[in-house]
Amino acid sequence: MPSHLEELIAALRCLPGVGPKSAQRMAYHLLQRDRSGALRLAQALEQATSNIRHCSKCNNFSELEVCALCASEKRDAGLLCVVEMPADLLVMEQTQCYRGMYYVLMGRLSPLDGIGAKELHVERLLKRVQERPCEVILATNFTVEGDATAHYLATLLQSRDVRVSRIARGLPVGGELEQVDSGTLAQAVLERREVMA
Amino acid sequence: MPSHLEELIAALRCLPGVGPKSAQRMAYHLLQRDRSGALRLAQALEQATSNIRHCSKCNNFSELEVCALCASEKRDAGLLCVVEMPADLLVMEQTQCYRGMYYVLMGRLSPLDGIGAKELHVERLLKRVQERPCEVILATNFTVEGDATAHYLATLLQSRDVRVSRIARGLPVGGELEQVDSGTLAQAVLERREVMA
Repeated sequence: MPSHLEELIAALRCLPGVGPKSAQRMAYHLLQRDRSGALRLAQALEQATSNIRHCSKCNNFSELEVCALCASEKRDAGLLCVVEMPADLLVMEQTQCYRGMYYVLMGRLSPLDGIGAKELHVERLLKRVQERPCEVILATNFTVEGDATAHYLATLLQSRDVRVSRIARGLPVGGELEQVDSGTLAQAVLERREVMA
Repeated sequence: MPSHLEELIAALRCLPGVGPKSAQRMAYHLLQRDRSGALRLAQALEQATSNIRHCSKCNNFSELEVCALCASEKRDAGLLCVVEMPADLLVMEQTQCYRGMYYVLMGRLSPLDGIGAKELHVERLLKRVQERPCEVILATNFTVEGDATAHYLATLLQSRDVRVSRIARGLPVGGELEQVDSGTLAQAVLERREVMA
């Protein structure tokens, strides 16, 4: 096998979820059917690695020292929503119901993957909280890791002079009791809210 | 979203089997956890696209005009084995039972994907056959497309002065009748061989 082909197959394996067989298939596809796509990808990788850093306020990916969202004067600086990943920020924005600021953890506590408090750079979040938002909304996922992360952050923040909340768990909009899993239903009962007449 | 990040996500979609969600996940992973892997991949893509071409004899990927296998004097020039992809050539070589030459189609007839005889560059194979091997062994896959390709090539080659064969179909080594699918078993009965006493 030509050595540059071997090297390409090895390099493709840095992509998550790509094993030896897929890497081989990808390399063959690029060389045989899409060389211009391969060159475009090479350029995009170089451009992105040299231009994209983390916003100094929200930790999201950004090409500027402070990203557009953090720099916006239309956002409510009193609210700070903590999410795991940039994709979570995007879906949150798509709801169009939240006008506060964000902090992106870029991960979650996951001891099995070697991600502890240090790897999450929690001290940067604590520094951010010192800028005194009124409320920190923990919007990590409702997975085991996401819940543990929220619990850990809540413990850290309780000594600070800030309100800490967690987004609600319950049935999805349009959800039917018959179709929802029993864990969600149990939580929905536990966290039931009084109905205003 | 930063524009270089958007461009990276778009560029990653040139990889086969990568949709918008996986592309986003890959981009986040590279930027967050493996920037050196991303740069290595960018270089490998550029090196491979500029250095890898097709061997003028066997059509396999090669960095030379004629690849090492075709240039070797130890191979039997009287045998020409036609395979679909470079990976097929590799598994064929791993058997260590074939010492002839190869021709790699780099695909198969697949009208639904827009791959006809022209896209397969069949005329290059015919030119290769003019160098007079004694026998052409059709080793395309036993899929609908692979079988159709073999049938098409056999029709093209029958007017030429060359023996054309197809690799055998039947039960795998260690295969049990109970476990094999009925199509394979039917073929194994049809293509039964006389037992020498």
